[in-house]
Amino acid sequence: MFGAFIMSKIYDLIIIGAGPAGITASVYAARKEMDFIVLTMDIGGQTAWSGDIENYLGYQFITGTELTSKFEEHIKKYNVEVKEAEEVIEISKNGDDVLVRTDSSEYRARSLIVASGKQSKPLGVPGEEEYRNKGVAYCATCDAPLFAGKTVAVIGGGNSALEAALQLIKIAKHIYLINITPELGGDTIIRDKVAASDNVTIMNNSQVKEIFGSTFVEGIKIETEKKEETLSLEGVFVEIGLKPNTAFKSDLEKNEQGEIVVNCNNETNTPGIFAAGDVTNVLEKQIIIAAGEGAKATLSAFRYISKIK
Amino acid sequence: MFGAFIMSKIYDLIIIGAGPAGITASVYAARKEMDFIVLTMDIGGQTAWSGDIENYLGYQFITGTELTSKFEEHIKKYNVEVKEAEEVIEISKNGDDVLVRTDSSEYRARSLIVASGKQSKPLGVPGEEEYRNKGVAYCATCDAPLFAGKTVAVIGGGNSALEAALQLIKIAKHIYLINITPELGGDTIIRDKVAASDNVTIMNNSQVKEIFGSTFVEGIKIETEKKEETLSLEGVFVEIGLKPNTAFKSDLEKNEQGEIVVNCNNETNTPGIFAAGDVTNVLEKQIIIAAGEGAKATLSAFRYISKIK
Repeated sequence: MFGAFIMSKIYDLIIIGAGPAGITASVYAARKEMDFIVLTMDIGGQTAWSGDIENYLGYQFITGTELTSKFEEHIKKYNVEVKEAEEVIEISKNGDDVLVRTDSSEYRARSLIVASGKQSKPLGVPGEEEYRNKGVAYCATCDAPLFAGKTVAVIGGGNSALEAALQLIKIAKHIYLINITPELGGDTIIRDKVAASDNVTIMNNSQVKEIFGSTFVEGIKIETEKKEETLSLEGVFVEIGLKPNTAFKSDLEKNEQGEIVVNCNNETNTPGIFAAGDVTNVLEKQIIIAAGEGAKATLSAFRYISKIK
Repeated sequence: MFGAFIMSKIYDLIIIGAGPAGITASVYAARKEMDFIVLTMDIGGQTAWSGDIENYLGYQFITGTELTSKFEEHIKKYNVEVKEAEEVIEISKNGDDVLVRTDSSEYRARSLIVASGKQSKPLGVPGEEEYRNKGVAYCATCDAPLFAGKTVAVIGGGNSALEAALQLIKIAKHIYLINITPELGGDTIIRDKVAASDNVTIMNNSQVKEIFGSTFVEGIKIETEKKEETLSLEGVFVEIGLKPNTAFKSDLEKNEQGEIVVNCNNETNTPGIFAAGDVTNVLEKQIIIAAGEGAKATLSAFRYISKIK
């Protein structure tokens, strides 16, 4: 009976996630006076643990923590109903309604926006957590300018790592590219450019064992085929990939990377279900892009329920 | 010879426009250390004459003027080369290069982002300019909440006007929908919803002749088939359409509305030419969306020139 009672409430919209995409979606939904709820693990998403942000339009400089507080203030202003620490287990449809089952409850709505984001795959070595934002970074587009004239390592051997290296070539003093496999992967053109640069040292068959420092990163210990080595440097870009937060059960179409496939209006393969931000197949992973996608998703959801209601 | 001299400089990127899309594109290009120039009629685009903005993530409340200054500060920080009051006459390609001819010069680059925006079609009646942002508005999504509990007019009879009315129904006290033709156009479903609402008066065959007031709008004079009438109200939403700023000569694919057709990565039909923001076929016209699109366009242009260089 309790379950049935919860199920009887039908929201206009459920938003999963409260990073830049989910929060912008919320602000737009509030302004459209939609009856909605936000289900999320945390507030801020990856923004919360970004370092210094210099590319969010309107702010010349703001930290990830500060921008996250601004986002929180913005949704508080609209009294948005947010359920934190809710892990989504399953998304399904029942007629026109969307059902979202979490670890603690079940929700029903006319429409849904999945904005659950992505997370960087961590290296899992000693020192990584300790020096996060103190030299350890996960986004070259965001943080490369903070390492101007410095020596850094990029960890990884695929396109993400190569693109990070390419961005750092003009900015950093020297770059060690630490790749665990015998050869670099990724696109030939980018690989050739990285290889042609005189301030990049490519180290194949090499594995990071530890990140060390005092207040900030001071170096890394790596293991190559035959020996252990210590490199002195000030920055470590971990670029071994991201994984979308799409572990829940659903019939949503995903690409090879596990990202939810959307069109330019943020529609998924399922009517009434939209997706926005890093969890989708949109190529670029940036706060301002996720925010724009979140706004588009709500406006698409609003148009959708205007037609079915 | 002077012309030939100017032509010899080849930029990485030209950005046309300095509204939210063009400025975000610029900030990203600067951070990628691209060699680029911005050609624009003005700074801020439509943001500059937006009223109060409550849906730009990171700011709970900011005026259009203030947000425009923030944008200007942001590009000044990066010493972006901006040529103001440049009107683009023609865009063409010469081999891999993009050529942009303006009313005063000619520019050459490896890539181009068109972010020239849109402009609302004005009514062209006395009082419209005088009361712009003092009761006269051009965007219901942006400004509807400012008219809570007030009586307003929506001018127009197509989908834009109907959607504006739909947004105002829950917020405003009463809405006059002033339509110049004998019947409303637009989608049936939206039209029916508007017609079914008890706080909307639909006035067909009616034309606005004047907007009047003192400090703010106080009313409008309209002419119907047989008589002149005066309506007392506090807000006028002009929704007779927008036109994209695409008067320049080019081979770019446009849709029926004259908007440049882009895919989700902001590519046009011409390699090396990208477009972003209101000038494109992206459905929604919002500052945060344009900003996100501008960021995506630069990152796409950067990937493009990385491959051809």
